[in-house]
Amino acid sequence: MIEVGIVGGTGYTGVELLRLLAAHPQAKVRTITSRKEAGLPVAQMFPSLRGHYDELSYSDPATARLDQCRVVFFATPHGVAMAQARELVAAGVKIIDLAADFRLKDVAEFERWYKMPHACPELLAESVYGLPEMHRKAIRGARIVGNPGCYPTAIQLGFLPLVEAGIVDCAHLIADAKSGVSGAGRKAELELTFSEASDNFKAYNVGAHRHHPEIVQGLGAVSKEPLKLVFTPHLAPMIRGIFATLYARITKPEVDLQSLYEKRYAGEPFVDVMPAGSHPDTRSVRAANVCRIAVHRPQGGDIAVVLAVEDNLVKGAAGQAVQNMNLLFGLPETTGLMEPPVLP
Amino acid sequence: MIEVGIVGGTGYTGVELLRLLAAHPQAKVRTITSRKEAGLPVAQMFPSLRGHYDELSYSDPATARLDQCRVVFFATPHGVAMAQARELVAAGVKIIDLAADFRLKDVAEFERWYKMPHACPELLAESVYGLPEMHRKAIRGARIVGNPGCYPTAIQLGFLPLVEAGIVDCAHLIADAKSGVSGAGRKAELELTFSEASDNFKAYNVGAHRHHPEIVQGLGAVSKEPLKLVFTPHLAPMIRGIFATLYARITKPEVDLQSLYEKRYAGEPFVDVMPAGSHPDTRSVRAANVCRIAVHRPQGGDIAVVLAVEDNLVKGAAGQAVQNMNLLFGLPETTGLMEPPVLP
Amino acid sequence: MIEVGIVGGTGYTGVELLRLLAAHPQAKVRTITSRKEAGLPVAQMFPSLRGHYDELSYSDPATARLDQCRVVFFATPHGVAMAQARELVAAGVKIIDLAADFRLKDVAEFERWYKMPHACPELLAESVYGLPEMHRKAIRGARIVGNPGCYPTAIQLGFLPLVEAGIVDCAHLIADAKSGVSGAGRKAELELTFSEASDNFKAYNVGAHRHHPEIVQGLGAVSKEPLKLVFTPHLAPMIRGIFATLYARITKPEVDLQSLYEKRYAGEPFVDVMPAGSHPDTRSVRAANVCRIAVHRPQGGDIAVVLAVEDNLVKGAAGQAVQNMNLLFGLPETTGLMEPPVLP
Amino acid sequence: MIEVGIVGGTGYTGVELLRLLAAHPQAKVRTITSRKEAGLPVAQMFPSLRGHYDELSYSDPATARLDQCRVVFFATPHGVAMAQARELVAAGVKIIDLAADFRLKDVAEFERWYKMPHACPELLAESVYGLPEMHRKAIRGARIVGNPGCYPTAIQLGFLPLVEAGIVDCAHLIADAKSGVSGAGRKAELELTFSEASDNFKAYNVGAHRHHPEIVQGLGAVSKEPLKLVFTPHLAPMIRGIFATLYARITKPEVDLQSLYEKRYAGEPFVDVMPAGSHPDTRSVRAANVCRIAVHRPQGGDIAVVLAVEDNLVKGAAGQAVQNMNLLFGLPETTGLMEPPVLP
Repeated sequence: MIEVGIVGGTGYTGVELLRLLAAHPQAKVRTITSRKEAGLPVAQMFPSLRGHYDELSYSDPATARLDQCRVVFFATPHGVAMAQARELVAAGVKIIDLAADFRLKDVAEFERWYKMPHACPELLAESVYGLPEMHRKAIRGARIVGNPGCYPTAIQLGFLPLVEAGIVDCAHLIADAKSGVSGAGRKAELELTFSEASDNFKAYNVGAHRHHPEIVQGLGAVSKEPLKLVFTPHLAPMIRGIFATLYARITKPEVDLQSLYEKRYAGEPFVDVMPAGSHPDTRSVRAANVCRIAVHRPQGGDIAVVLAVEDNLVKGAAGQAVQNMNLLFGLPETTGLMEPPVLP
Repeated sequence: MIEVGIVGGTGYTGVELLRLLAAHPQAKVRTITSRKEAGLPVAQMFPSLRGHYDELSYSDPATARLDQCRVVFFATPHGVAMAQARELVAAGVKIIDLAADFRLKDVAEFERWYKMPHACPELLAESVYGLPEMHRKAIRGARIVGNPGCYPTAIQLGFLPLVEAGIVDCAHLIADAKSGVSGAGRKAELELTFSEASDNFKAYNVGAHRHHPEIVQGLGAVSKEPLKLVFTPHLAPMIRGIFATLYARITKPEVDLQSLYEKRYAGEPFVDVMPAGSHPDTRSVRAANVCRIAVHRPQGGDIAVVLAVEDNLVKGAAGQAVQNMNLLFGLPETTGLMEPPVLP
Repeated sequence: MIEVGIVGGTGYTGVELLRLLAAHPQAKVRTITSRKEAGLPVAQMFPSLRGHYDELSYSDPATARLDQCRVVFFATPHGVAMAQARELVAAGVKIIDLAADFRLKDVAEFERWYKMPHACPELLAESVYGLPEMHRKAIRGARIVGNPGCYPTAIQLGFLPLVEAGIVDCAHLIADAKSGVSGAGRKAELELTFSEASDNFKAYNVGAHRHHPEIVQGLGAVSKEPLKLVFTPHLAPMIRGIFATLYARITKPEVDLQSLYEKRYAGEPFVDVMPAGSHPDTRSVRAANVCRIAVHRPQGGDIAVVLAVEDNLVKGAAGQAVQNMNLLFGLPETTGLMEPPVLP
Repeated sequence: MIEVGIVGGTGYTGVELLRLLAAHPQAKVRTITSRKEAGLPVAQMFPSLRGHYDELSYSDPATARLDQCRVVFFATPHGVAMAQARELVAAGVKIIDLAADFRLKDVAEFERWYKMPHACPELLAESVYGLPEMHRKAIRGARIVGNPGCYPTAIQLGFLPLVEAGIVDCAHLIADAKSGVSGAGRKAELELTFSEASDNFKAYNVGAHRHHPEIVQGLGAVSKEPLKLVFTPHLAPMIRGIFATLYARITKPEVDLQSLYEKRYAGEPFVDVMPAGSHPDTRSVRAANVCRIAVHRPQGGDIAVVLAVEDNLVKGAAGQAVQNMNLLFGLPETTGLMEPPVLP
């Protein structure tokens, strides 16, 4: 049984880790910390967990013995994981950071987007970006995994076959992405309230979203030419789900896109390439660790349109983190992650 | 491994059975029928099930070998289960009907509310009403279980301790209940469309809902006096969930309601009595087989207010059906039903 | 042209006043204050108003010349209106308070529920409760109007005919009310966020809501016997709308309820009694100044069930405030308030 | 007073016409037809209209005297308007068709997309496409107006300044558009039900939507080079609203996009160009006849991103139709259309 620690267990990725790990046969949450809620039983904070974690209360981060866990998930704001990483790594604890501290390899780039100095550049250097479909082997041997952002997971998985195959104009990729409101986290902000966000649709941070450099880093590494991306995030009136509509100019029109995608993701347990002509919807992955993809070529033209959906809290966060944990500990990658989506 | 048949597997209770049974360690869906979709793979109908039931297609009811299953769930309109019950029972197959054919013991009452003659009154007589918290023992030995309606589950569990204890005026019970839209089933009706049902709230069928006699039958059986109920169903703009607000005039003011409820449901795995002063919400049971209850006595007056929530498709339908299956086959009652609710 | 001032124009009742007054042919907003947003054009705060109030910016409350307006609406938290009332009244300015400062006639009751001393009891004494269907005449001559709360408007209008006629047991009234999220105001609170409030239903403040004494005061004044009320507020996943389901034990069974309601509200421009057997829904009054009511008597029994709907921001707040303004200034009561509801 | 006829008054565009015309000072609905609901008062069909159209009932199309109206709106399925056009035009009645019969100038194109022969090609030839921002002058003198589709309105208004100025690559335009569910009409279809469409997001008809040729026709007419468009429609879980995110490769990088848009739409009463850097949202136009636009150039690159929002039932349908009526009858274009949006 893998003893697990969770730092910052009051946000949506934290409670989603609790939900997923409750059903995991080989892991057990031993410690969960929250500065603000120290002492409070988790099931009092989240009545949905009544009967599932009756022994577990939030610990004070100052006194919690995270070093006695075998793996610690950071479900925290940016900056927390890197502050504790050296100590934990020294104690032999694996780290999976669900924030951005270990996503961007370029320290300057990190500091530019996140407005803080990086606390441990040498650990950043050895850390592995936790997208198993790209870095499975490296993840297995890692001490620190930087778990991908929600948008970057869907957008990278969606573009990957095209970019790897070198058959599109990588200098003009377009990602039009729509996220459910839980993607913004569990926080009291006016624009996230029901009265503001319901029955409404909007774009935000056009040209300036922090997930932009992460996507460019990942896809750029497999592109044969310099890669540029226009990324437009939108807020959709739903709780969970990311829908990414991706556009790329095809430069080698003879390639069969459907077959390209099917081959690239054959054997991937958590990427589902749908039959040609399909239209995935976000609810088809609700609460499950799946990225479902369809690829189109409207009217046989020279633009590829890729549709990729995921649950932002699962394949886009906590589920992928558990998938990474499975890899870190040599378990079958699908352990504890095979519950079907919740529909309707 | 229990071989399972499902008749009518294209509605919400059918697909919810598929979701729950996919995670059940001791049951396997062998046959699922649909007149309209015969031949179609279930995962083509419901892309959320891709990867979970890749071998399973809908069978034609005319040729499906349901008699080779050990239990058959009827997730059908009213009238279908009773038409096939004799044959299946004769073949030694257990039946769990999620429709109303085996809920009302009084044949005349059934025929008055459902406008059809009952096809097998002798089987109705021996069938057991599948509310384990009231009839656990009888369910264990049954051949046919009439799985309760969604409203009746929440309303009976909510009122039960008060009525059994004989401490309220049973001639004037009031149940003000609110249901998510999935309670109306998977059907194309104008008033169920998003544009009509979203951002809206309404009552319907005031004084004339088919679940009325079912509730009165169940509570009446344990009441010391004739029982009368005013039941007002409402349609709330959410997918899943029933919220029942129950009112009863207290006749024995000295009784401690909180303690009464805690004692009545002590040991019940799927009824959760919350601490005094709590306000349950429907999302705290989303996708899980739980009825969560809080009991209030506003301003110390003589009216008890009980709040009971459930997921109408789980504890109000498919989950309770699986719970009944576990009882029928001597399995631990909680088998396959312990996934935590999905929140947010 | 009536020159209007609005104090606290950044909340939902404030912006709703702006929306309604933009279409009012005889009123013009001259001054709108906001401590926090002083100097900001209102159309920058609310892009929906672009093109409608291009000259209007928020003023600093300290320097705003409200005394030059003929009427001032307070769309503020409790306590603000009473602090400024004496000065404005002395200057001959009429006051319509959309908060609670002038709702409860009993000073002690006010102080108990709102936890603050009343700043001007003598003005409270002369102020009029702004429910035109009960106090039309007094409102016409008032200097200060206490605009009713959203729940109290629907619940009082719903119960009024029964209580006035003395045909129900007034010691056991039950109001089961459901509100859209905008009823909680425009504020950043976790439980109001989309991720928490959407696809969810809950009760709150059972037995302890501040609108309770207001309803009891209003109905108690026309009741022949001491009046007691159980009031259960619920939060429904919609933006606007209140749905009140009201229960009362009938003591004079011979009375024709439908006819009683139709007579009571004959000639009322903003109360619509629907035909017998109707089920109103909240969207049928969305954005309009109407309270729509249906009355039922389930199965001919001794419990009356009244269904009353309103838009909490219109008939439950800003619309009723404009209706009161019309009365204060001798305009036809319906002036500027006859736009049909927005459906779907 | 302009006497108005409405054919097909039971859908969402029909009831929206009723809502808008109720507030129009110079028009009066004299006749409204519905085959299915002939004889029924409109306020019985739509309780939101109680008190607004108490004299108006649906007429049988066979006997309705539409020829006595001065203008007839067709809020019908495709094919109905063209079948009645000759007779009405001969009687001197103006026609505004909210369906597609008079949108596509190329008869073959119409027949290919709508699978029916065109009934009156000669009238199609003289009819005018009712986008006032492009064809104001021609509309004034028209006998038949083909009212634009909802997507085409937002997408054409969004692209227009770029295409007219000839500063983008018109052979690779991309329109990623999101629509509320009411855009699909008032009909009982499974995929439009709340349980299917709520808390969900999906694309549909990728590369094959009927609005595609309409957009290409409109923009192509002002483009200096052959125009090609990839158009991806999506279904968003909201009632009203279209959000169009438009992408175009800039070929003349020196042009100031913000200034281009402001100049193009200066003086347009119903197109609002927001300040640079803005992010419009659909609720900011809810229930109002406005298309609100913002233009971005992410990271100063060579791709323009235009965000355009409208209410699909107003500027995308009934509101634009009333705007066209105002033009046809020489009224100020804004008559009856200046109500502010409903927010929240």
